[in-house]
Amino acid sequence: MLLNQYNKTRKYTESLCSPLNIEDYIPQAVDFTSPPKWHLAHTTWFFEEMILTKFVADYAVFDRHFGFLFNSYYQTVGEKALRAQRGIMTRPTVEQVYQYRHYVDGHIQRLLSDDISEEIQALIILGINHEQQHQELLLTDLKYTLSLNPTHPVYHPDFDLVSQPLVRTEEKQWLSFSEGVYEIGYKDSGFCFDNELGRHKVYLQNFQIATSLVTNAEYIEFIESGGYSTFQYWLDDGWAWLCNNQINSPLYWQYLDGQWYYYTLAGLKLVEPDAIISHVSYYEANAFATWKKMRLATEFEWEIAATQFNWGQRWEWTSSAYLPYPGFAISEGAVGEYNGKFMVNQMVLRGASVATSENHSRASYRNFFQPQCQWQFSGIRLVK
Amino acid sequence: MLLNQYNKTRKYTESLCSPLNIEDYIPQAVDFTSPPKWHLAHTTWFFEEMILTKFVADYAVFDRHFGFLFNSYYQTVGEKALRAQRGIMTRPTVEQVYQYRHYVDGHIQRLLSDDISEEIQALIILGINHEQQHQELLLTDLKYTLSLNPTHPVYHPDFDLVSQPLVRTEEKQWLSFSEGVYEIGYKDSGFCFDNELGRHKVYLQNFQIATSLVTNAEYIEFIESGGYSTFQYWLDDGWAWLCNNQINSPLYWQYLDGQWYYYTLAGLKLVEPDAIISHVSYYEANAFATWKKMRLATEFEWEIAATQFNWGQRWEWTSSAYLPYPGFAISEGAVGEYNGKFMVNQMVLRGASVATSENHSRASYRNFFQPQCQWQFSGIRLVK
Amino acid sequence: MLLNQYNKTRKYTESLCSPLNIEDYIPQAVDFTSPPKWHLAHTTWFFEEMILTKFVADYAVFDRHFGFLFNSYYQTVGEKALRAQRGIMTRPTVEQVYQYRHYVDGHIQRLLSDDISEEIQALIILGINHEQQHQELLLTDLKYTLSLNPTHPVYHPDFDLVSQPLVRTEEKQWLSFSEGVYEIGYKDSGFCFDNELGRHKVYLQNFQIATSLVTNAEYIEFIESGGYSTFQYWLDDGWAWLCNNQINSPLYWQYLDGQWYYYTLAGLKLVEPDAIISHVSYYEANAFATWKKMRLATEFEWEIAATQFNWGQRWEWTSSAYLPYPGFAISEGAVGEYNGKFMVNQMVLRGASVATSENHSRASYRNFFQPQCQWQFSGIRLVK
Amino acid sequence: MLLNQYNKTRKYTESLCSPLNIEDYIPQAVDFTSPPKWHLAHTTWFFEEMILTKFVADYAVFDRHFGFLFNSYYQTVGEKALRAQRGIMTRPTVEQVYQYRHYVDGHIQRLLSDDISEEIQALIILGINHEQQHQELLLTDLKYTLSLNPTHPVYHPDFDLVSQPLVRTEEKQWLSFSEGVYEIGYKDSGFCFDNELGRHKVYLQNFQIATSLVTNAEYIEFIESGGYSTFQYWLDDGWAWLCNNQINSPLYWQYLDGQWYYYTLAGLKLVEPDAIISHVSYYEANAFATWKKMRLATEFEWEIAATQFNWGQRWEWTSSAYLPYPGFAISEGAVGEYNGKFMVNQMVLRGASVATSENHSRASYRNFFQPQCQWQFSGIRLVK
Repeated sequence: MLLNQYNKTRKYTESLCSPLNIEDYIPQAVDFTSPPKWHLAHTTWFFEEMILTKFVADYAVFDRHFGFLFNSYYQTVGEKALRAQRGIMTRPTVEQVYQYRHYVDGHIQRLLSDDISEEIQALIILGINHEQQHQELLLTDLKYTLSLNPTHPVYHPDFDLVSQPLVRTEEKQWLSFSEGVYEIGYKDSGFCFDNELGRHKVYLQNFQIATSLVTNAEYIEFIESGGYSTFQYWLDDGWAWLCNNQINSPLYWQYLDGQWYYYTLAGLKLVEPDAIISHVSYYEANAFATWKKMRLATEFEWEIAATQFNWGQRWEWTSSAYLPYPGFAISEGAVGEYNGKFMVNQMVLRGASVATSENHSRASYRNFFQPQCQWQFSGIRLVK
Repeated sequence: MLLNQYNKTRKYTESLCSPLNIEDYIPQAVDFTSPPKWHLAHTTWFFEEMILTKFVADYAVFDRHFGFLFNSYYQTVGEKALRAQRGIMTRPTVEQVYQYRHYVDGHIQRLLSDDISEEIQALIILGINHEQQHQELLLTDLKYTLSLNPTHPVYHPDFDLVSQPLVRTEEKQWLSFSEGVYEIGYKDSGFCFDNELGRHKVYLQNFQIATSLVTNAEYIEFIESGGYSTFQYWLDDGWAWLCNNQINSPLYWQYLDGQWYYYTLAGLKLVEPDAIISHVSYYEANAFATWKKMRLATEFEWEIAATQFNWGQRWEWTSSAYLPYPGFAISEGAVGEYNGKFMVNQMVLRGASVATSENHSRASYRNFFQPQCQWQFSGIRLVK
Repeated sequence: MLLNQYNKTRKYTESLCSPLNIEDYIPQAVDFTSPPKWHLAHTTWFFEEMILTKFVADYAVFDRHFGFLFNSYYQTVGEKALRAQRGIMTRPTVEQVYQYRHYVDGHIQRLLSDDISEEIQALIILGINHEQQHQELLLTDLKYTLSLNPTHPVYHPDFDLVSQPLVRTEEKQWLSFSEGVYEIGYKDSGFCFDNELGRHKVYLQNFQIATSLVTNAEYIEFIESGGYSTFQYWLDDGWAWLCNNQINSPLYWQYLDGQWYYYTLAGLKLVEPDAIISHVSYYEANAFATWKKMRLATEFEWEIAATQFNWGQRWEWTSSAYLPYPGFAISEGAVGEYNGKFMVNQMVLRGASVATSENHSRASYRNFFQPQCQWQFSGIRLVK
Repeated sequence: MLLNQYNKTRKYTESLCSPLNIEDYIPQAVDFTSPPKWHLAHTTWFFEEMILTKFVADYAVFDRHFGFLFNSYYQTVGEKALRAQRGIMTRPTVEQVYQYRHYVDGHIQRLLSDDISEEIQALIILGINHEQQHQELLLTDLKYTLSLNPTHPVYHPDFDLVSQPLVRTEEKQWLSFSEGVYEIGYKDSGFCFDNELGRHKVYLQNFQIATSLVTNAEYIEFIESGGYSTFQYWLDDGWAWLCNNQINSPLYWQYLDGQWYYYTLAGLKLVEPDAIISHVSYYEANAFATWKKMRLATEFEWEIAATQFNWGQRWEWTSSAYLPYPGFAISEGAVGEYNGKFMVNQMVLRGASVATSENHSRASYRNFFQPQCQWQFSGIRLVK
């Protein structure tokens, strides 16, 4: 069953690349994105480095340079290529990277055909979850790169991840919760990341949370009422970000001939009023809520309420900074670099998005990004 | 009595400047510091702009340019001079700024000799607290500027704010607290800032907190054990900060001929092992705690425990991001720009420091700075 | 015959790309380099924009986006894609760019099969020379990109443009010239660039010029004698460049296990002592000459002496700033943007290099780059 | 007589500072300007370092820190304070700097009352000329700093160095020169800088040069005809400079209520149409000339023609890059750092300005600045 899961995940990553030309695998548009080729190789390197080289006797690495080229932030593991130069590495070729994937797949499959220790099992599950995270990044990074091309390239005509299913049909409703002690954190027995662990009590005040997310129409109202030119709605850092980068709409939006368009993976489209807003930063989400005289949920409120509304179409910015849960401790070794070291200057997002791989989220999942990030499929849920 | 408080505060600010030459009033060393002249004028402008021009009929402003020159972040109030150019403004002269102070003092004193509304009273108290904050900044900014002078200028020979009284005599002890619901936030009837209001319940887990702060000797142990070259102890952003700025000690420390010295307002001094560490960033405080296999307190743990230990010599970094309390709302008008808009990307510090003006702190006081800031008198208290 | 020249030039560009993988066509390593795909398309766009759309009735452009994507500095011609984003444009594909080339080739060939006006003829000759310039840039830019790959990719095993034929066999000799009036500038009837025109008299002083270029061995002597750490040899801007970029050797050199290696288009190689130095900036060439107590030639000295020595293996830095000849005037229209607008902050190089296309230089040819540029095949000839 | 000259020069520097408040002595507005206090001290340090410490037995330096603080680019002499931090040094005080001046004056005066060697004499003359250069910089730097103050401070009401005497009364005339060999370089026996030496022949083509400089009225015509928005008039680097810095007029100009004003050392004034243009960069001078379908003079044309027109009110941008004359060699020791190391990336200006000290220029004098510099009193003379 783990073998199935492994195979399915690995194949899905490759299927995401099937609409690509070789050219599309190469560029890195900005420091915070990575090329498809890098995602394909890096997720493979994770299995090679964390499992095969450690637990398979006489395992021969596919290519001794790959550890250097496709290592990411894992400083424990040794030197790595400069993050900003991932788009410059034309060699190995895309074909060689696929060979690398299949080489590692063969070894992992062989490993999984035997009995394996719990430690290895846990690492393979971690590798699968790691790869699923990169599946989403592969799409969001690709969208960012293609969006800079003035010809508005189409990744796949059926792949309009912004306005997808997302039409809001019912009226927005408010769910009420009473103050008191609640429990937070992962409680089941399956896989979760270390940052969800340490189930613990928190005290929440009374709050009401919306059952549905903010739509484009609501957000356009904010824009048209001068939302981007009224500093009172904005955090100080947000206002500086907006001024320095001349932000006046969500990412990918363009105002042409009196109408709002946005770039999607299916090309340039008219903004649909009833679709859910996407590609807003925390600064924008917070400013929108302030304009509405409401606020965003804390990550704890969100987790408690999540059983009572639908979620999964947008990562939802919370008003919680990304901080360790009580008792959190960084694991030893490279695996420990996974989450803990990012616990400053980032905000928590909860939920999942249309780009998140199937079964790759849960109510206790803690995603996190810097408050200026817009390139994820991120939306807004209001609390009052 | 408010008159007394007003006069005392205003005089104390000027007394802080009495050891200065005119030259010292001018420079702005970096964007985040301000010249003494600016502090003297800006605190005065606060009284003029928020009170005299609003509540005193026929009040004539001292100089129409000063609103532009000495306004700070108060975007509501109109245009302002560029923050980075405060050190370039040689006019008005220092003498004219003192005349400005005395002109405004005269008007406020006249106002206070009559019955005044509660609104005005509240604003004067806010102005006094505002000026007290700037008294501390005046000292920390001045120290920063003077420290860049290779001649190690002495501000005042008796004014060694680092090693002052601070010798730790008793052994470090640990206070234990049990998990449960606690109440947080300002509860008395005197003045407090808006960010302390909204007293509310929080749920804390068991914790033990040290009765005393980390000393220089303990910190030197961290340095000597390779603390600044071991990335595992550091948050990712902290490691980048350390590498980009070649940080290898607290601010103002210099290693000369085999010994650690630090610049103090009384000149360059040998680091005293038993004095309490100062001028560390959040990144350093956090790395030190990680190295010790402990952690920093949350601001809530700190507030609950604070009745049982001495504090007031160092601002103490907490592990809490600066976020609004439940129910926090930004006030209308310029006064509302005071606190709320900084609630992102900063960490809370609790306590007070040797540079904090008398009576200008309380257990519920929430100070806040970016995690890389070192120029405040900031220290470390451990929790386990 | 013009048709032959056209076809030969166009084919040669494509032959330079024959060792490339599709991946290699894409990246732009830094702002001053361009991807192979861009060179292929831009040189084609030049023929389409300057000739076909102007002189061929009913000519249908291949793709209306290409004018935007592959325009370079020609501000007259309209908007253009950001120079720094050439490496991000994955569409059109490489294959489409080749189709573009062949489409334009067909039209130009048809045009050349008829009688054509002198104006068109001149523009086609200009287009050929323009493409020849880009052939050299294609190689130098590609070398720059591949050099950043830690695997030292081989472009072509026989294509070691650095140590090629270049062994110096005869002893260095000195040619003497007497002071007097000399004539400078292009004097024949074939093609030349506008910046070579305006043949005019200059007065030269006595000088002696070396018959051969500086070798690696001589340059290593400079390095080993502390050349890169002695500020007296350097121009002030050169010293700042060296300090800010931590330069301590020519571009592509690496010191490994006690020996100097350099990256070449045939892979990493040991530096051959007798090969001619390459990839030095003007700052380095000037510092080397100063260390030798000699100097570089002016471009006028070079042009006068050039008939009496061999040249063509390295672009030779001169001590002349790139300035207009007497009577120089910028042509009307886009063609006028070619040379004149760069006449500030650049130094003249004379000669040609191993990467220069056949027949694409002459003694009056004025190449020019910023003094910090190292990525051309640039060398040093001494004068005393 | 040398003593007289010395005393006169030293006193004149101090007289330039007599309208200043102590506050005005301190700030450094940008990296390329220096505070008055620094100019006062640095010129003094030159005499102390180059003469007193070398030639006066038992000379005791005034303060051992001053060599570090007031050294400039003289890397030979040892470490120096960071150039960008000159405005932060509040100690020594202004008064101490004056004491330093008088201490050094006493020693130099004593030295000059005896017979001194030619070497010392030459160094004192160099020191006087060095100080005269700094007198002009003191004024231009001060103007730059004061101009940033929104209150438009008045340095001295009679000190309007822009519109001063400068009204153009006669019609512009053109002087013609015939092609041929001319001699260039300093030819008399008095003091000159090393960069003027090496009198040598040059060959000039026919040219006509204007007898008078371009006026504000003429320049306003350029502005109003779209000069700042037409890229064809501009060098490529100039256009980038203009776009990046949003330049649309000479430095210090402001367009208020339909009229052009400029900041002068006598305060904000209406631009006088008949006054000579000032504070233009080379890029602007070159663009203006291009718009006029003329050009700037080369420094050689200027030197030959200078006997036949009035000059001395503006530094006149030439089209010559700052390069060494034939036979130029950098002197040994610190004095050699004076000129030669700046011979790249700068353009020559000839003449003198209203801010140049009396007797501190001659027809062979070569001033030089980067092409974007506007803060000198620089103007435009046309050639056709």
